Amino acid sequence: MISEEERAQVLAEALPYLRRYHGKSLVIKYGGAAMADERLKQSVIQGVVLLHFVGIRPVLVHGGGPEVTEAMKKVGKVPTFVGGLRVTDAETVEIVEMVLTGKTNKGIVSMIHRQGGKAVGLSGKDGNLFVARRLKVGDTDLGFVGEVTQVNTEVLEPLAEHGFIPVISSVAMGEEGETLNINADHVAGRLAAALRAEKLILLTDVPGLLEDVQRPESLLSEIGIARARELLASGCVERGMIPKVEACLMALEGGVPRAHIIDGRRPHALLTELFTDRGIGTMIRL
Amino acid sequence: MISEEERAQVLAEALPYLRRYHGKSLVIKYGGAAMADERLKQSVIQGVVLLHFVGIRPVLVHGGGPEVTEAMKKVGKVPTFVGGLRVTDAETVEIVEMVLTGKTNKGIVSMIHRQGGKAVGLSGKDGNLFVARRLKVGDTDLGFVGEVTQVNTEVLEPLAEHGFIPVISSVAMGEEGETLNINADHVAGRLAAALRAEKLILLTDVPGLLEDVQRPESLLSEIGIARARELLASGCVERGMIPKVEACLMALEGGVPRAHIIDGRRPHALLTELFTDRGIGTMIRL
Amino acid sequence: MISEEERAQVLAEALPYLRRYHGKSLVIKYGGAAMADERLKQSVIQGVVLLHFVGIRPVLVHGGGPEVTEAMKKVGKVPTFVGGLRVTDAETVEIVEMVLTGKTNKGIVSMIHRQGGKAVGLSGKDGNLFVARRLKVGDTDLGFVGEVTQVNTEVLEPLAEHGFIPVISSVAMGEEGETLNINADHVAGRLAAALRAEKLILLTDVPGLLEDVQRPESLLSEIGIARARELLASGCVERGMIPKVEACLMALEGGVPRAHIIDGRRPHALLTELFTDRGIGTMIRL
Amino acid sequence: MISEEERAQVLAEALPYLRRYHGKSLVIKYGGAAMADERLKQSVIQGVVLLHFVGIRPVLVHGGGPEVTEAMKKVGKVPTFVGGLRVTDAETVEIVEMVLTGKTNKGIVSMIHRQGGKAVGLSGKDGNLFVARRLKVGDTDLGFVGEVTQVNTEVLEPLAEHGFIPVISSVAMGEEGETLNINADHVAGRLAAALRAEKLILLTDVPGLLEDVQRPESLLSEIGIARARELLASGCVERGMIPKVEACLMALEGGVPRAHIIDGRRPHALLTELFTDRGIGTMIRL
Amino acid sequence: MISEEERAQVLAEALPYLRRYHGKSLVIKYGGAAMADERLKQSVIQGVVLLHFVGIRPVLVHGGGPEVTEAMKKVGKVPTFVGGLRVTDAETVEIVEMVLTGKTNKGIVSMIHRQGGKAVGLSGKDGNLFVARRLKVGDTDLGFVGEVTQVNTEVLEPLAEHGFIPVISSVAMGEEGETLNINADHVAGRLAAALRAEKLILLTDVPGLLEDVQRPESLLSEIGIARARELLASGCVERGMIPKVEACLMALEGGVPRAHIIDGRRPHALLTELFTDRGIGTMIRL
Amino acid sequence: MISEEERAQVLAEALPYLRRYHGKSLVIKYGGAAMADERLKQSVIQGVVLLHFVGIRPVLVHGGGPEVTEAMKKVGKVPTFVGGLRVTDAETVEIVEMVLTGKTNKGIVSMIHRQGGKAVGLSGKDGNLFVARRLKVGDTDLGFVGEVTQVNTEVLEPLAEHGFIPVISSVAMGEEGETLNINADHVAGRLAAALRAEKLILLTDVPGLLEDVQRPESLLSEIGIARARELLASGCVERGMIPKVEACLMALEGGVPRAHIIDGRRPHALLTELFTDRGIGTMIRL
Repeated sequence: MISEEERAQVLAEALPYLRRYHGKSLVIKYGGAAMADERLKQSVIQGVVLLHFVGIRPVLVHGGGPEVTEAMKKVGKVPTFVGGLRVTDAETVEIVEMVLTGKTNKGIVSMIHRQGGKAVGLSGKDGNLFVARRLKVGDTDLGFVGEVTQVNTEVLEPLAEHGFIPVISSVAMGEEGETLNINADHVAGRLAAALRAEKLILLTDVPGLLEDVQRPESLLSEIGIARARELLASGCVERGMIPKVEACLMALEGGVPRAHIIDGRRPHALLTELFTDRGIGTMIRL
Repeated sequence: MISEEERAQVLAEALPYLRRYHGKSLVIKYGGAAMADERLKQSVIQGVVLLHFVGIRPVLVHGGGPEVTEAMKKVGKVPTFVGGLRVTDAETVEIVEMVLTGKTNKGIVSMIHRQGGKAVGLSGKDGNLFVARRLKVGDTDLGFVGEVTQVNTEVLEPLAEHGFIPVISSVAMGEEGETLNINADHVAGRLAAALRAEKLILLTDVPGLLEDVQRPESLLSEIGIARARELLASGCVERGMIPKVEACLMALEGGVPRAHIIDGRRPHALLTELFTDRGIGTMIRL
Repeated sequence: MISEEERAQVLAEALPYLRRYHGKSLVIKYGGAAMADERLKQSVIQGVVLLHFVGIRPVLVHGGGPEVTEAMKKVGKVPTFVGGLRVTDAETVEIVEMVLTGKTNKGIVSMIHRQGGKAVGLSGKDGNLFVARRLKVGDTDLGFVGEVTQVNTEVLEPLAEHGFIPVISSVAMGEEGETLNINADHVAGRLAAALRAEKLILLTDVPGLLEDVQRPESLLSEIGIARARELLASGCVERGMIPKVEACLMALEGGVPRAHIIDGRRPHALLTELFTDRGIGTMIRL
Repeated sequence: MISEEERAQVLAEALPYLRRYHGKSLVIKYGGAAMADERLKQSVIQGVVLLHFVGIRPVLVHGGGPEVTEAMKKVGKVPTFVGGLRVTDAETVEIVEMVLTGKTNKGIVSMIHRQGGKAVGLSGKDGNLFVARRLKVGDTDLGFVGEVTQVNTEVLEPLAEHGFIPVISSVAMGEEGETLNINADHVAGRLAAALRAEKLILLTDVPGLLEDVQRPESLLSEIGIARARELLASGCVERGMIPKVEACLMALEGGVPRAHIIDGRRPHALLTELFTDRGIGTMIRL
Repeated sequence: MISEEERAQVLAEALPYLRRYHGKSLVIKYGGAAMADERLKQSVIQGVVLLHFVGIRPVLVHGGGPEVTEAMKKVGKVPTFVGGLRVTDAETVEIVEMVLTGKTNKGIVSMIHRQGGKAVGLSGKDGNLFVARRLKVGDTDLGFVGEVTQVNTEVLEPLAEHGFIPVISSVAMGEEGETLNINADHVAGRLAAALRAEKLILLTDVPGLLEDVQRPESLLSEIGIARARELLASGCVERGMIPKVEACLMALEGGVPRAHIIDGRRPHALLTELFTDRGIGTMIRL
Repeated sequence: MISEEERAQVLAEALPYLRRYHGKSLVIKYGGAAMADERLKQSVIQGVVLLHFVGIRPVLVHGGGPEVTEAMKKVGKVPTFVGGLRVTDAETVEIVEMVLTGKTNKGIVSMIHRQGGKAVGLSGKDGNLFVARRLKVGDTDLGFVGEVTQVNTEVLEPLAEHGFIPVISSVAMGEEGETLNINADHVAGRLAAALRAEKLILLTDVPGLLEDVQRPESLLSEIGIARARELLASGCVERGMIPKVEACLMALEGGVPRAHIIDGRRPHALLTELFTDRGIGTMIRL
């Protein structure tokens, strides 16, 4: 049991971190277990609202794969993946958009309001926040899957100034007006770069980036951008981690000084990362 | 064929209307045929973007009944209506939200961008724009159907100041955090009142309000608020028109000087109503 | 007879032009028949006020030769011209200033107010808007005729921000404190350059710039700046057109992308030029 | 000869006055000898520019009777006066406007610039600064002579904020769009009231208001508003002073605490009145 | 030992308090042991800087009795007290001012800077923050001891807007320009009222207000304003607590909803009071 | 005896100076006789307040040697000087800070308020206005004597914008958190440079800089920066003048166009220097 005095002590010790992040933007990719487990969900949202109230500017980007898969099943569609990417036909991209933008996104917005914050949910289409083009992966036609070609943060500024936390789904308009499904890690990486964020934080379901996927104890707690590039090139990065490492590189190349891949299954992973000495997961730095 | 000179003449004659509406908010309920027919859709969106560029502040509220019905059918659900209101179970309200907020709304947002405007799509949940409670209609349990209890336009101001047209879906959070489906006409009426709009304009699929439903030639082109209340009380208003007349009353009672029920099936209904001498449809005034 | 629906259609088709000119400055040189004929006057002023209300910033520069000549006659003076320029003795420049700044200018200001706009009349002396020096033309002493040496738009900014349309007479203070009469086309050209206007539009009494003055059908509808310089150098430009072409060059050289010499005798020449596909008169572009 | 040290002493002693008037508006009616004599002109304008630089907001209203009379003579018109008011036919009012607004006004503007200040000349027509209606004096038709019915100071605010001294001629638009000549003292009185000025100062060619017109030593150096009303009603006020006393009453009734009628023939009358202990002329107070 | 996760948990649990105090002013009277003990000093200053960084506006008022006494001794003066108030002759008030404003105040300012905050030290004389008059206590002449007669917070607003924490010493100018020593608790109470602070917090060297001074266990943890008035009137309040209870009443009567007398000897007393459920000391509420 | 009219004339003649200094910062080092003699004190403060009211931004830096010496004597300490610099042990620097910041500074602040101005007293510690490091002079340990290493004017801007005159004492925090006594002339020179002031004015007790210390008639009324450097290097500058000439060089090298060493024993030295043609004392220019 922590005493009241110890609590005050803990708060006092957060001062250096509060100072460091004051007025800065943090882009947080929210997904995985932290979005499925009710208690973890509470803890992430609470953390995000707290960031707002202590003068930091959190920007939330979310995916929602499991909810999409579930919705597809309801209408009798079987999800297919090629190289880890969802094959997305016209009907599927419509489901993706409806689930991510119409359900998951508004669910997060509502949770923020229940915690006393204010939020606005956006997709790439709103205010042309980000636009995309069809992604080509070798010869495979993945359908309505895209990659971000342009980020336009104009709509975020007035919302931030008025205290609204932006919650962003990874759907955008393509070059021919079609709806495209985009990897949410990539969206977060690109947004962090465009906002010159102080940090990009990716919540995942693993302890971080492993040097040797077979050995959990080989966690890389801090690496430079060059090492991250090497790891990607070497092919040793586990498939699920590839887009995360790529997102970190997008952010770092855009001027974000630090990007983190942390274990969202830990309670208060976000606050632990930001406000204590012990970094958790993997930090990639410039 | 209209000559270039006649075109200029037409523009010049719009001056008195431009002056009158300059800097004012107009709440437009967009629905029905104007949302189904591709050409009408283009014309409405073009009109809305034009309003923005000539210094007027349009706010768009939309429904989307047919798309909801279609989505329900895909998952094998049969829509039921009681007294014109959709019986909305938990699964249905989820579909309603996903379709309206995730698909219809973003479709309108994208069309505005393609016409050169800037838009942001919102539901009642975003920035707590409007909150609702369960609607009770006699003894019938309509499920997750709500009525607006509070409008909070705080999120609209910064967006309007930065030139974003708000596009609003009629879904809100209820008192227990549940999602509620709300009549879009009512949402438009309440928003118009909260914004002290200059006008509320409801696009419908009929020529306007008829004195005698059997006689199309009995169109009421202009009535006062008292007469509108009498008509509602008399029970002579056709069922589909009831929420529209109610929405007009909500707006007028909130200080909006004029509310219009116009025929959205006519090309350029919006601009005709606003910028020519011939009112179309029914105007209800204070 | 144009139907209401056609009117709405015409307005809708103005959207691309409204978008293009939104928030931009347009410098309009107002003179000739458009200033003498009552109906044309109405149409120009209506057009200017309309530009203001649709979010464009018109700046009006006017001459007033015929009114000056009339006033001179009243006091028994005979106008003399050398090379198209009015020989201006001390008494004449006083008449010029009184007529242009005290009568013509305020007449335009009043007409704008009657059309529902707001205007402020200025001469070069107000806020030192522009200053001049004596013009030397060969050996001839033209008297109090000047050329602009400096433009200082400081006074225009606060007026524009508060919605006042500036109406400017072509009179300025010379280096020794004397009043100087300046060619109004030149004033317009220099102001357009100083404001980095989107366009300079000169209303004239001819169809535009002709390749061969003898053949009205030789109208040059679009030429580049190089060609305009050649024409001037060649000596083929009709005397009355010389200051107009010079004004266009002043604007273009100062960064204004397009300058137009249009026929002010046509009703709604201004709106036709700006809001329809058919350019009228001559456009000179960078 | 005043020593440098005495000069510094004099400046230091102005501190209480500088403090009192800091940021306040002063409406100054400029006319009479102070406008005819070159040296006095310099001294008034210098004083006005100094007021601006020490943080006070001067607003200058001017007449120009002698210049009007001279211009009328040039075109062979004989001035007629009824009860001290100029009978003003259509041709005369045109001359009045041209002379006051086009010549006298711009002359003052230029002098302010030469003293290092910034000024903008306005008539009642600019920004609808003041509007008027035909003045009825018993049965006599004075022609185009008006009285102020409305003052609209909207145009003065942005100019003042950017450091421009407004210079105002006493001409306005009437109810039917006609130009009207207005008594400049009255204009000054009404403007002082509308601006809630700290003071109204009328420069005249007499020592002030006399109790007995025959006895110059009967100068009233300070009277209350009630006494001023009595004097006017008694008929003892000399004709030329009537509009001045009326102007003072207009100002005082509109909330201006003090109005002054001072002798503009004295060098530095303005600064003497404002910055020394010795009031000069007549002060009328609430 | 508190784990990293527990730390994050503690921070998360501070959210309701952060929300409640966001953007609000807190006036903190700093004195007693918390100002003498080096470790407690650190903890208070750290807490104050933390308040700033989490979006709260702390205003610090300090005394400095022991330092004054020490300085007096150095020049051979013996402190005398009458009814708990220091008898303050001319030489003493000079020492008081020099010690409080010149030494204690700047010491606190420097400590805030060392913790990464920004501070500006003020006395009542700066910007006329507060003015005073001689205090009369019965027949005793206390010398240069005063009570606040007026608070003028004009200087605090620009400092707060730019992120400077005001640190205020309890010295002011009297009606005849003399320097007066004022009870720092009273200064804090009056300032809290003038700022409409959210709270007044007085750091003391006792556990709080006791019902029975003899029994430490009789701590009153929460009382209403009426009860506080009764206690004062009853004469049972211990002498040292009288000015503190008076200060609380000044604040409450000025609209501050809650005033706290807390034990500054406890580490992190400030943060414990503000950010945990357990109120410490005595709260007096409206 | 100066007549009222002569007074007005004197004010009018100040116009060129008012124009020149309008909105500019002037850094004034206040010290010597002008700070000891009651009448001179009044005259300096009156001058400073006048500067504020005529739209100039005075910044006052003060020393206070005699008051420090007096305070030291009270506690039985004997001042020691090495090379003109006060040897400052820990006890002495505490006295210096208390006297300068707690007494002298607040005395000046109060005088400004009594003259109708508004002031805020600051030391280098407030808002980290300036920071210092220990000064090394050859091998001598001067104790807590410092030199400015950094100026941070952030705190001055909001104060100036709200009309507060900053009054600054020459004490700052050193690199190890210790308090350091700094030469006030140097502080003024460094501040003038950091503020890009229009002038630095040093009030002294001598007529100015002499070419030959023995001959008072050898006053240098205007020299360039190169000549000032030569004089310093030559060793002919009298010891007391050395820091003053150094301060002038600091200002000039930082972009201040003119620095003045003037005789503060003359009444109204400040206003005479600023507002009359006769420069007094020595001007050093770029």
